[in-house]
Amino acid sequence: MASVSVDEAMRRAIELAARGLGTTSPNPVVGCVLLDADGAVVGEGFHAYAGGPHAEIVALAQAGERARGGTAVVTLEPCDHTGRTGPCSTALVQAGVGRVVIAVPDPNPVATGGAATLRSAGVRVDLGIRGDEAEAGNVAWLTSMRRGWPYVIWKYAATVDGRSAAADGTSMWITSEAARIDVHALRGTVDAVIAGVGTVLADDPRLTARNLRDGSLAIRQPLRVVVDSSGRTPADARVRDGAARTWIATAAEVGAGPDGRVDLPALLAALHQRGVRAVLLEGGPRLAGAFLAAGLVDKIVGYVAPRLLGAGPTALVDAGVSTIAEAIDLEFVDVTQIGPDLRITALPRKREG
Amino acid sequence: MASVSVDEAMRRAIELAARGLGTTSPNPVVGCVLLDADGAVVGEGFHAYAGGPHAEIVALAQAGERARGGTAVVTLEPCDHTGRTGPCSTALVQAGVGRVVIAVPDPNPVATGGAATLRSAGVRVDLGIRGDEAEAGNVAWLTSMRRGWPYVIWKYAATVDGRSAAADGTSMWITSEAARIDVHALRGTVDAVIAGVGTVLADDPRLTARNLRDGSLAIRQPLRVVVDSSGRTPADARVRDGAARTWIATAAEVGAGPDGRVDLPALLAALHQRGVRAVLLEGGPRLAGAFLAAGLVDKIVGYVAPRLLGAGPTALVDAGVSTIAEAIDLEFVDVTQIGPDLRITALPRKREG
Repeated sequence: MASVSVDEAMRRAIELAARGLGTTSPNPVVGCVLLDADGAVVGEGFHAYAGGPHAEIVALAQAGERARGGTAVVTLEPCDHTGRTGPCSTALVQAGVGRVVIAVPDPNPVATGGAATLRSAGVRVDLGIRGDEAEAGNVAWLTSMRRGWPYVIWKYAATVDGRSAAADGTSMWITSEAARIDVHALRGTVDAVIAGVGTVLADDPRLTARNLRDGSLAIRQPLRVVVDSSGRTPADARVRDGAARTWIATAAEVGAGPDGRVDLPALLAALHQRGVRAVLLEGGPRLAGAFLAAGLVDKIVGYVAPRLLGAGPTALVDAGVSTIAEAIDLEFVDVTQIGPDLRITALPRKREG
Repeated sequence: MASVSVDEAMRRAIELAARGLGTTSPNPVVGCVLLDADGAVVGEGFHAYAGGPHAEIVALAQAGERARGGTAVVTLEPCDHTGRTGPCSTALVQAGVGRVVIAVPDPNPVATGGAATLRSAGVRVDLGIRGDEAEAGNVAWLTSMRRGWPYVIWKYAATVDGRSAAADGTSMWITSEAARIDVHALRGTVDAVIAGVGTVLADDPRLTARNLRDGSLAIRQPLRVVVDSSGRTPADARVRDGAARTWIATAAEVGAGPDGRVDLPALLAALHQRGVRAVLLEGGPRLAGAFLAAGLVDKIVGYVAPRLLGAGPTALVDAGVSTIAEAIDLEFVDVTQIGPDLRITALPRKREG
């Protein structure tokens, strides 16, 4: 087999890792490529689901004896603890791997230490190869582990003039079926979907990840979270059906902010405790405004329909901005046409001071 | 010289025509490529400014005797009348051209007839080669000539959540300097810029085409039109300065619609009479709404800044839409990043019925 450079192997490992997106939580996505002493690929693996084998173990099982004296190229520092599976660091040492190349160190205080264990066993360890790329592939998990609350994606749908419904409140459908299919795919990549009780009362959404063609539910459903300060979610609301788990987060349970409403940092901390690493914030406009005003949004995904309304509710309300100098600055990172609509992805710029 | 196909010559003629954009009005843009009997390029020309020589005349002058027995490839049907210059049809016959290939027939009732004159003089005439492409290059002029009122481009600037100013009214600047430079270039391609008196009272804009680096004025300035039903434009408003011509269009002069405001179709017809073929509608939100509600907008150019406001005036108000089924449907035709901003270009879809 042709030999492959470590850099090329890492590119492949990052691709492999991405195949776990949406099913590994609360674990990270991880990919691993094993090269033998001549640089030929002898094993590949990725972490597919929490409780399943880690990427390194999958690749080592493929490689068998051919791993001896070889190089393991892995997107995240191998774990050093015994959870549902044994430590990958030990498995790599026992397989006789001579070198381990790591893109990103593990920020998880429970699992970290793999690189040190490997080094003390005489294995050469290199860190940081294609680090930015691997970091981007794991951004939600890494961000949430480093700071202790989930990565928050605010999703909205609006007309090109920023309206989320017409003057009479009608909104089905602002965006195309293609865009709504894309939203369901996005729900499939997160651990929780958050909506305000106003949205539940107005639209009675299911908040599940579904196949829109036949209505069937995705195998893995995000936790449905209703931010409902005073417990107004109706007993027969669709979010309370059996299709997925649901948490009606009240101020009494979570704690209240100065305005008497659910304290959002406390809500996110509680979700982190439940193993939630990435959340999709789906509305309404005032809840989005509260998250943005508090600096709690990490990514914005807007579905913009080629339509004009000129009246009706806007997609965002009360984001704590009263003058142009206080505007929340973003950076567009992607614009993709989805059916007739545009999907605009943006990141908030870090605020100075 | 290598011989060139008629199709390739037309592609080049369309490129040449585009070099006149913004300076030929009230004339169309036209490009011409002359091929000799062997298909070699012997002359090229475009119409550069009203009153200047037509594209065919420029190309014939270059070709001289080599035009005899050759082919003239021209983006628009050669004119058949004596205006500020003589008829191109006669010039082509006198030069001994054997064939004329035309992309688009001339809809102008005064100038049309060139093809018939050529044919009766024994010249072979082919119509429709790269017609759609040539049509697109001349869309404003062709549209306005066919229906008798100008091509209307609505331009707006807004945040990604659709706000044109913050809650306190501040708006300088929503978009980047790069986007504003692009707007000034856009002003340079139209014959008139339209704003409502509300915008004049609120922002006191100059509405000129300028070099934003040094403030210098473009050589050719669009007519500044203030839609001012009851004549409220202040005597010292910047739009009244000497930098460009200005028309304060009052209901008394233009005529009033059922709402007592300036009748917009009458305004556009009056502008057409003045030789205006393309106009840029720059605001405010209610005037844009009135144009859109009346179906008078041909193209939309939105400059969308990567910022969120969550409050403040929206870019569009009262477009005659009260429920989702009445939304004004568009088609996105281009999205380009201009500095940090997006420039979104869309066309209204034809309404049924």
